[in-house]
Amino acid sequence: MTNKTQFENGVLGTNVIAQIGILVHDIDTVSQAYADFFGVEKPQWNWTDTVDVAQTEFEGVSSEARSKLAFFDMGSLQLELIEPDQHPSTWRNHLNEHGEGPHHIAFIINGMKDKVTLMESKNMRLVQKGEYTGGRYAYMDTFKDLKIMLELLENDK
Amino acid sequence: MTNKTQFENGVLGTNVIAQIGILVHDIDTVSQAYADFFGVEKPQWNWTDTVDVAQTEFEGVSSEARSKLAFFDMGSLQLELIEPDQHPSTWRNHLNEHGEGPHHIAFIINGMKDKVTLMESKNMRLVQKGEYTGGRYAYMDTFKDLKIMLELLENDK
Repeated sequence: MTNKTQFENGVLGTNVIAQIGILVHDIDTVSQAYADFFGVEKPQWNWTDTVDVAQTEFEGVSSEARSKLAFFDMGSLQLELIEPDQHPSTWRNHLNEHGEGPHHIAFIINGMKDKVTLMESKNMRLVQKGEYTGGRYAYMDTFKDLKIMLELLENDK
Repeated sequence: MTNKTQFENGVLGTNVIAQIGILVHDIDTVSQAYADFFGVEKPQWNWTDTVDVAQTEFEGVSSEARSKLAFFDMGSLQLELIEPDQHPSTWRNHLNEHGEGPHHIAFIINGMKDKVTLMESKNMRLVQKGEYTGGRYAYMDTFKDLKIMLELLENDK
């Protein structure tokens, strides 16, 4: 069996980790620390879009929550720093409950609606979703089985 | 400036994440869950070597601590599941304090002794080290700056 065939038997159709997301209290300070440590330029951070654009939903309800995001290219994947605002979100709640540190690993998938439905049928709950320029994301509660949250990313062609 | 030059200015000489380590209570159950989810075969787990071979040191003291390890290839990096035994170690202590979930990200470096000394000069403490067949590892306390623990891996040529 080829690798390709194997992964098609999987839920996501891929096993390539595209991002690791890390929650922080102060994105400026932590971005500078990463830049200094890895010898790269400090990236600009950007706010996620406002709810009218992002259509953010947390626990099934429309949410004003936003985060500042900064990305570092780390080999074949991105390390994403996330500083959430004070509105309830998976980012803010996880940061409050667990402190700074890893929040999720992300995979680029095709067919968001079908993947979410398939995961829900396996008792992996949709926690938060939203749109970004050129695509959309969904955080799925996979803690029980996989011991870490997964994020699905779907980019428009 | 080329990427290569940039990373040579960094502490590790690389920014390529080689592994993500995840602590679990039951490596058999979680390995099966990953295998089912990603549509791959369940890998065999293996015990880390005994202290006479691994020369394990935790907090500067020789330690009998061992873990069961299982590896999944996830794109260009490995996802490592870790089930520690009951002896004190960074694995056991982190699992007791934080529960199951991410423990570290790992980088393959050259010159372990020099890298550890350089990081210690930046107040990044050596937490645990040991040998494995073909190489050696060191866990460094980078929580204050980077919000996650780093593991250094050096493989013999």
